[in-house]
Amino acid sequence: MAGFDAVDVIRTKRDKGELSDGQIDWVIDAYTKGDVADEQMSSLAMAILLNGMNRREIARWTNAMIASGERMDFAKLSRPTADKHSTGGVGDKITLPLAPLVAACGVAVPQLSGRGLGHTGGTLDKLESIPGWRAALSNEEMMSQLEDVGAVICAAGDGLAPADKKLYALRDVTGTVEAIPLIASSIMSKKIAEGTGALVLDVKVGSGAFMKDVANARELAETMVALGTDAGVKTVALLTDMSTPLGLTAGNALEVRESVEVLTGGGPADVVELTIALATEMLAAAGVTDVDPAEKLRDGTAMDAWNRMISAQGGDPSAELPVAPEQHVVKASSTGVLTAMDALAVGVAAWRLGAGRARKEDPVSAVAGVELHAKPGDSVTEGQPLLTLHADDTSRFDRALESLADAVQISADGRYEPTPLVIDRITA
Amino acid sequence: MAGFDAVDVIRTKRDKGELSDGQIDWVIDAYTKGDVADEQMSSLAMAILLNGMNRREIARWTNAMIASGERMDFAKLSRPTADKHSTGGVGDKITLPLAPLVAACGVAVPQLSGRGLGHTGGTLDKLESIPGWRAALSNEEMMSQLEDVGAVICAAGDGLAPADKKLYALRDVTGTVEAIPLIASSIMSKKIAEGTGALVLDVKVGSGAFMKDVANARELAETMVALGTDAGVKTVALLTDMSTPLGLTAGNALEVRESVEVLTGGGPADVVELTIALATEMLAAAGVTDVDPAEKLRDGTAMDAWNRMISAQGGDPSAELPVAPEQHVVKASSTGVLTAMDALAVGVAAWRLGAGRARKEDPVSAVAGVELHAKPGDSVTEGQPLLTLHADDTSRFDRALESLADAVQISADGRYEPTPLVIDRITA
Repeated sequence: MAGFDAVDVIRTKRDKGELSDGQIDWVIDAYTKGDVADEQMSSLAMAILLNGMNRREIARWTNAMIASGERMDFAKLSRPTADKHSTGGVGDKITLPLAPLVAACGVAVPQLSGRGLGHTGGTLDKLESIPGWRAALSNEEMMSQLEDVGAVICAAGDGLAPADKKLYALRDVTGTVEAIPLIASSIMSKKIAEGTGALVLDVKVGSGAFMKDVANARELAETMVALGTDAGVKTVALLTDMSTPLGLTAGNALEVRESVEVLTGGGPADVVELTIALATEMLAAAGVTDVDPAEKLRDGTAMDAWNRMISAQGGDPSAELPVAPEQHVVKASSTGVLTAMDALAVGVAAWRLGAGRARKEDPVSAVAGVELHAKPGDSVTEGQPLLTLHADDTSRFDRALESLADAVQISADGRYEPTPLVIDRITA
Repeated sequence: MAGFDAVDVIRTKRDKGELSDGQIDWVIDAYTKGDVADEQMSSLAMAILLNGMNRREIARWTNAMIASGERMDFAKLSRPTADKHSTGGVGDKITLPLAPLVAACGVAVPQLSGRGLGHTGGTLDKLESIPGWRAALSNEEMMSQLEDVGAVICAAGDGLAPADKKLYALRDVTGTVEAIPLIASSIMSKKIAEGTGALVLDVKVGSGAFMKDVANARELAETMVALGTDAGVKTVALLTDMSTPLGLTAGNALEVRESVEVLTGGGPADVVELTIALATEMLAAAGVTDVDPAEKLRDGTAMDAWNRMISAQGGDPSAELPVAPEQHVVKASSTGVLTAMDALAVGVAAWRLGAGRARKEDPVSAVAGVELHAKPGDSVTEGQPLLTLHADDTSRFDRALESLADAVQISADGRYEPTPLVIDRITA
């Protein structure tokens, strides 16, 4: 692929032009090999962020990233596959009950997950609070667990879309994360390379999400649905609210505990609602329409699948989860109806308590996090507990409380306008 | 200067915000030290290119680059100083006759120059075609030559604005050269650090110039005049035409020969006109209004200053200049009035003949270049010589002729609308 030049490619996008297929293939390949330098790719990424890419460019960019690595193939499995991806939110533990639930309904879930960075937690960090559980599986172990158990949640290998891995690390330090074409192609290159037959996207909107407004979230969702569809993956997206945390917990062991409650037929209403909504989409996308996921939560088969899924990866599903040695209760400052519990504030508080990491190499605490005792719409009385902060040591509380200073709003006149959890559904 | 973060600075400009003084000082200092990485500075440069900087930001950016290195001081000289900077054009040899002319009028000219890159030649490359002449001077040699001769044209040392040197090399490979705030601060940081009392800017407009249209050229000129004025340097800019080459030569020894013609009272009208216009501005900016530069060309005192300036740097002003062993004549294809001789085409031809370099480390030919036998407005007859190409070997001609394919326009009906050489004058 000679005849291309990094500065020409950068100038094309800088001057609001369209990148040709040849330019895109070349620049991704040359960047992966190191022939295009980091400083060239970061200036191109900024030009893409500010000037955009059209649908053809984004599809080609995604394909070039897929072509930089290996592809997996689940065609040999005896059942259809469906995967889910969330763009990340506070208290978003949905993958934990969802994967075994969908497996219990007869669809295999190959869930390659990541670790958390910043105020949103990572699925692998949460599961690692279960004694013995391990995230790293070989491709063979993953395939055999999918066949036997029907669900696997594990770390993505280095072989899928290595161009994306290199580019994501670069974007993280160069202020170029927030580009919809680059976000969409980053997510979809890994999901398409992974080889899932169907994909449901949970695109979060609100203070605790990456996308703060519905218009941007919709654009991202539409872009990803188009990419999946073009690649032959049956893809659907839900836009869901992230103005307040999902459920009543944000933290690693705290969220595992809440997920198990959902799998035993209980748990917070919003977590149950979203788990069933996403399960229904995954089953439909995989062609399974005669199974009721709510029934599988009630009858214990989803819980059985969870136990087998955790055991298969070395975890003890019956082991006690660790509990924080230090706790601090935040009380309601007045009486009325709780009208806001800000997701970003709670997410940052959980992060500062030790549940998240600032840098990739930082450790996380299994026990740290925030527990909610009330959600928007609930009536509260002055002095009642609103939140409990969990941490390994009391020194964590001050900075977490700072983040929560304006998180809670209580209305004396009781007026509260509930927002729907599922805002919209985007299809091809 | 703690408390700043590269990604925050990048995001500020990416989101169309204003960089604070603290952010600018920090990012330039940290980049010079290597604490801000190349890939971070290039994404910031792209954000600046696409989102701009206001006057305060540009001034602060310029000052931060000046502060990264040493400053010179000409206050001890017995006469005032004035410098000139051209944004670069084809056949732009004006510095060569201008510096000794202004010196002959009583104003010292400390001309720190560069080498050529791409289709515009470098002043030092031109002077190096004179046997024995050397570009490198110590600060002491420069100061003593300024006192004795009144003019010095030499290479800028590494000590002035090292941040600019590092940033310019980065911009060159990341598609971020064409940002007016960065061009202006790059030029002005070096000129202000150099310590000149007055500065005249020759901002070129047209196909052979960096700025292709008057609006951009005016914006660049106004930005630079404001920066100089704010820094206490009396600064004026002329916008001048670069749609056709200056004079009748583009090449190293070829341009020295033409410059000497101007210094002996002859030479092409446009070169004489621009030399006198710039000299008049430099003298006025330095406070000298009672000397007529045209008279100093006629009476030989400018030529005397040239001889002393060349000799002081080891050159032999009476030595024969080298001549190309191979020449190729391009003839007029029809009869009429020459209406265009495209500057960019001629510049690229001279470059391909060997007069310029593609990479910093390439050598240049002293003899290569293009000689013009007619200029726009001249009547020509089919078959008469229009151009002579000069090269070290005949293999250079084909690619040079390719560049010239559409360079020349001849109008059979004789209509020709001349464009003024000096388009506008920009003052504080």
